[in-house]
Amino acid sequence: MCASDFARTPQNQVRQKPGRAHYDRDTIYSILDEALSCHVGFVHIGQPYAIPTIHGRDGDVLYFHGGRGSRLLAHMQTGQPVCITATLLDGIVLARSVFHHSMNYRSAMLFGVGAVVDSLAEKFHALEVITNHVVPDRWADARKPTEKELGATAVVRVNILNASAKIRTGPPVDDPEDWQLPVWAGVLPLGLHALSPEADPALAEGIPVPSYVSAYSRSSP
Amino acid sequence: MCASDFARTPQNQVRQKPGRAHYDRDTIYSILDEALSCHVGFVHIGQPYAIPTIHGRDGDVLYFHGGRGSRLLAHMQTGQPVCITATLLDGIVLARSVFHHSMNYRSAMLFGVGAVVDSLAEKFHALEVITNHVVPDRWADARKPTEKELGATAVVRVNILNASAKIRTGPPVDDPEDWQLPVWAGVLPLGLHALSPEADPALAEGIPVPSYVSAYSRSSP
Repeated sequence: MCASDFARTPQNQVRQKPGRAHYDRDTIYSILDEALSCHVGFVHIGQPYAIPTIHGRDGDVLYFHGGRGSRLLAHMQTGQPVCITATLLDGIVLARSVFHHSMNYRSAMLFGVGAVVDSLAEKFHALEVITNHVVPDRWADARKPTEKELGATAVVRVNILNASAKIRTGPPVDDPEDWQLPVWAGVLPLGLHALSPEADPALAEGIPVPSYVSAYSRSSP
Repeated sequence: MCASDFARTPQNQVRQKPGRAHYDRDTIYSILDEALSCHVGFVHIGQPYAIPTIHGRDGDVLYFHGGRGSRLLAHMQTGQPVCITATLLDGIVLARSVFHHSMNYRSAMLFGVGAVVDSLAEKFHALEVITNHVVPDRWADARKPTEKELGATAVVRVNILNASAKIRTGPPVDDPEDWQLPVWAGVLPLGLHALSPEADPALAEGIPVPSYVSAYSRSSP
């Protein structure tokens, strides 16, 4: 364990297939940063919820935003524990046997508690972090939020207390006695890809598609 | 509301942007069936978790599987409430203003309680449902599970009690006073795409790539 590792606790310790576990910030944050969205797990009166949302990361802080009426934000800002999970699907692993079928994936699971962000300056910063998380360089081009818009936006910060990642890579692992079966085996790689940008029908004339849109890629470098 | 709709309850009612809500089974199940994976939200001693997994659906029943040591499965089979969420990202919505940036997405959220599946026949059926959910037609080709393999696999069923979906489509919706800003606006469509299949290095000679792999598509018809 090095300084940038999260301590292993009963909360974040990977029990199933521990060989796939990672506890270092670089690995965990690279997954979180590549993922466009995440799912936030929280509890309300004994009922668990897992709600999709977008996020932005600044060091060990995650930012989330939404409308003032958002159930997710309302709960996150109560200081109750939350679990934030981001998952990237990298491929379908087809083994000869049903039993050894699997997925290649990278997932990051983070634990913390939420707190409401009231300061307009931190809200502004959080929205920059979230905007550039989804589309790097977009913040510089877009019209910035007004004070009224900031007021209509709820922002929550979660200090990451604990986290782990789980990664599977590589070909299927069949039992040797199945190797000669006449069944195709291998990996079908998957990726989230961008298609051609579709201009807003109301777009003013003469505005080119920015390179951060036309050359958009979600893959890690 | 028609017979195939889920009743609206405080649990599944969409509060934020209710115009995006759907309560009919066709819409909800088409999202769940297109999604390769989902996130399961559950509570353990007050701590929420959101764990990624694959699923398969048979009518109003969802099946999950995993190793005997799986924390997710162990909790799902306790009969505690769970929340199952599947999210498809369809595009990034770039507005002229930061405030009106959004995502085009389809998400389905389902509620129920888990129960362990002990019967070997139902386990076998569940694995067929899950396998064909991930790769349609794969079950017919692959070597079926042995009794020993079924014994080493935990299977959980969740009867869906309640659900809703939330969908955003279409271009950005900027304020009219922003329409003439010199900022590109539109949608960058996204999709999960398969790349070229990679054969297992140990694959026996002369086995062609099946069409359900070479022509794999996750998109809805």
